[in-house]
Amino acid sequence: MENKPVLYTSLSPSLLNLYDVSNSIVVIIDVLRATSTIATALYNGARSVIPVDSVLRCIEIGRQIQGVTAGERDGRIAEGLEYGNSPFEYPREFVDGKTLVLTTTNGTRLLHMALDKGAKEIITGSFPNLSAVCDHLIEKKQNVILGCAAWKDRVNIEDTLFAGAVISRVRDHFLINCDSSHIAEAMYEKGKKDLFAFLKKSDASHYHRLMNFGLEKDIRYCLTADGANVLPIYKEGKLLVK
Amino acid sequence: MENKPVLYTSLSPSLLNLYDVSNSIVVIIDVLRATSTIATALYNGARSVIPVDSVLRCIEIGRQIQGVTAGERDGRIAEGLEYGNSPFEYPREFVDGKTLVLTTTNGTRLLHMALDKGAKEIITGSFPNLSAVCDHLIEKKQNVILGCAAWKDRVNIEDTLFAGAVISRVRDHFLINCDSSHIAEAMYEKGKKDLFAFLKKSDASHYHRLMNFGLEKDIRYCLTADGANVLPIYKEGKLLVK
Repeated sequence: MENKPVLYTSLSPSLLNLYDVSNSIVVIIDVLRATSTIATALYNGARSVIPVDSVLRCIEIGRQIQGVTAGERDGRIAEGLEYGNSPFEYPREFVDGKTLVLTTTNGTRLLHMALDKGAKEIITGSFPNLSAVCDHLIEKKQNVILGCAAWKDRVNIEDTLFAGAVISRVRDHFLINCDSSHIAEAMYEKGKKDLFAFLKKSDASHYHRLMNFGLEKDIRYCLTADGANVLPIYKEGKLLVK
Repeated sequence: MENKPVLYTSLSPSLLNLYDVSNSIVVIIDVLRATSTIATALYNGARSVIPVDSVLRCIEIGRQIQGVTAGERDGRIAEGLEYGNSPFEYPREFVDGKTLVLTTTNGTRLLHMALDKGAKEIITGSFPNLSAVCDHLIEKKQNVILGCAAWKDRVNIEDTLFAGAVISRVRDHFLINCDSSHIAEAMYEKGKKDLFAFLKKSDASHYHRLMNFGLEKDIRYCLTADGANVLPIYKEGKLLVK
């Protein structure tokens, strides 16, 4: 048997410690909306995105480096920050050449967990940069953990679907002995024809949360492949385009 | 809107603390094979099943009450115990009138977690007693947590499928704002026509583990509804038929 690298899916930050983080590339997945927004800002020319784990730290660093402070708590712009967590807030006209300092409920928290556990490499994944993520994983030939940011540690459908989308494209290059991965792939196969309709039909919690804020456009964008096809890699405190 | 009780699914013991255990009926789910075996032993006349969390304690209690010591570690009979974790070891001719002292890798551990967190009621669920579980939950009109025992905290497909089977039958009686539950139901809908074939096709880890031990018959039995349709309830250290 060929000596392929292994791939695991962690469906919630609470499960991350079950996997060998220090020997893996960790893909941070926060589809609605942190990692979609990160890909979009970088695609549109942002110099970098600095993920921070608290609003206070976001304000502090934003001041130091004259960056754009952005982030949400419970799906809304956090008090004290200038911008929110919608990819549509970061068109090229606005974000080109700027540095974003971003804090979100789940995604940035998971990224710091992976960092603390000594991940070999940290990248961020979302449908807008699906192909870039898959190409990178296939090329690197390293062990992979698909890390779903979930919602306050509760498993969510949209991050699971993205993990499934990645698996469906990279499965031949990895050894996958992981039921969470098989569940993710089965969910993706079930929903892939129309992910928006599938989220709605599945009664996904975060779908409802964002629809209640009038954010259907955000959801649709965040479920569409390759609209911002860059690969954000974490280096020395910043997410940069590879 | 009607004031329905809520239902959540905890896909791994590591996630149980996210839910309000002390205000809920917790259904312990360990399809392959602990909870299937518990239902079967009680259905076949066992006086009770005493779930214990270690092999030593199993031997100790077995001696004290002259019970049958049973259990597995990593899918095989644990050293020092008399019997294993297969439902076929407990036909009526053998188990009628006896008390089983049982320890398993995942199921009994989760049961003790739910107990420590003050669950309102603890019952065990498996396909062999699917209808008894669903009827009970509908009748009680209380909040429910479907607790998957998983495999060493890693989410597994078979427990997820059973949670989905319960949800597909009780969904109209509960408020279900829980993506894990929606994922479980979607998986069950995808697999329900032939659960054995689905486990195989999904490349489920525990399917392979048991097939390697020659236990196809066990798997098929554990995926079949209502073969031992009793309701095991935990009371003062013992699982008893309601």
